[in-house]
Amino acid sequence: MTLRLRAAPLPAPFRVVLVEPEIPQNTGNIGRLAAATQSTLHLVGRLGFRVDEHAVRRAGLDYWHLVDMRQHASLAHFVASERPARSLYFSAKTPRSYLEAGFQPGDALVFGKESTGLDPELLEREKERVFGIPTLGAVRSLNLSNAVAIVLYEALRQVGALDAVTLGE
Amino acid sequence: MTLRLRAAPLPAPFRVVLVEPEIPQNTGNIGRLAAATQSTLHLVGRLGFRVDEHAVRRAGLDYWHLVDMRQHASLAHFVASERPARSLYFSAKTPRSYLEAGFQPGDALVFGKESTGLDPELLEREKERVFGIPTLGAVRSLNLSNAVAIVLYEALRQVGALDAVTLGE
Repeated sequence: MTLRLRAAPLPAPFRVVLVEPEIPQNTGNIGRLAAATQSTLHLVGRLGFRVDEHAVRRAGLDYWHLVDMRQHASLAHFVASERPARSLYFSAKTPRSYLEAGFQPGDALVFGKESTGLDPELLEREKERVFGIPTLGAVRSLNLSNAVAIVLYEALRQVGALDAVTLGE
Repeated sequence: MTLRLRAAPLPAPFRVVLVEPEIPQNTGNIGRLAAATQSTLHLVGRLGFRVDEHAVRRAGLDYWHLVDMRQHASLAHFVASERPARSLYFSAKTPRSYLEAGFQPGDALVFGKESTGLDPELLEREKERVFGIPTLGAVRSLNLSNAVAIVLYEALRQVGALDAVTLGE
């Protein structure tokens, strides 16, 4: 087996939460990210695709069986069953950068759907806990899967999960 | 126009370099990332798909015309025409974390193809400048587009490009 760069597991993994995701390839890539970072993946509400093994395998997502994926009818159901200490919400429509989020192990990282993001009422109600990824070019938004990758690895960095790394299996 | 979180342009943008990319959706998402971060996108060698407007539009990549994309026959041609001060190479087969890369504005960030990564001889020759993204779960590698997103935003963070942000257009 080829050795690769590895870090130690976290005592309290992050929770990646997707509300009503629409594009199966994005959810597939985010599943791969979750399984690569020992995070759990939570799909909330109505999905734009089927998540059964056959449907995702057709999208080429061979690692789907390694993803710790759970479905919830609503964000309230997610909170009731998973009891995260804290939820952080991500949207570009905020003055707060993800670099200032002060991530803590076990945080729920909540992302909205590709087309329109999180519900504006939710963003208004939780505005102290809404963070965005700044853009500086002609395009003003990122692919959902890339946004989750950027936030999740910054969270891992901030909590020190990437401080000690080794070549391993 | 909805306001979004924005940062100021860099005096010397990063160069994102993909060697022989195979999957059009990944290159499309990386083009979106490049255009969102004011980076140039360089496609090197033989591609696994057509990059003309019609082909990428069919993949739903509506922002392709905003991407500053250039093609090069080889990495040597890329270096000869673009003259980056420095090239950094990315692979999971290294003991060095991307957090220790010491990014500088204008760096060329070089990524290999989805199936097998960068050429092992290149990685051996440049091993002091090869960096990886650690994984800590059952999956030991990331989607190419996600890997570029993680590295590029860490590079922007390290050079201070994300220090001052505002809600803007």
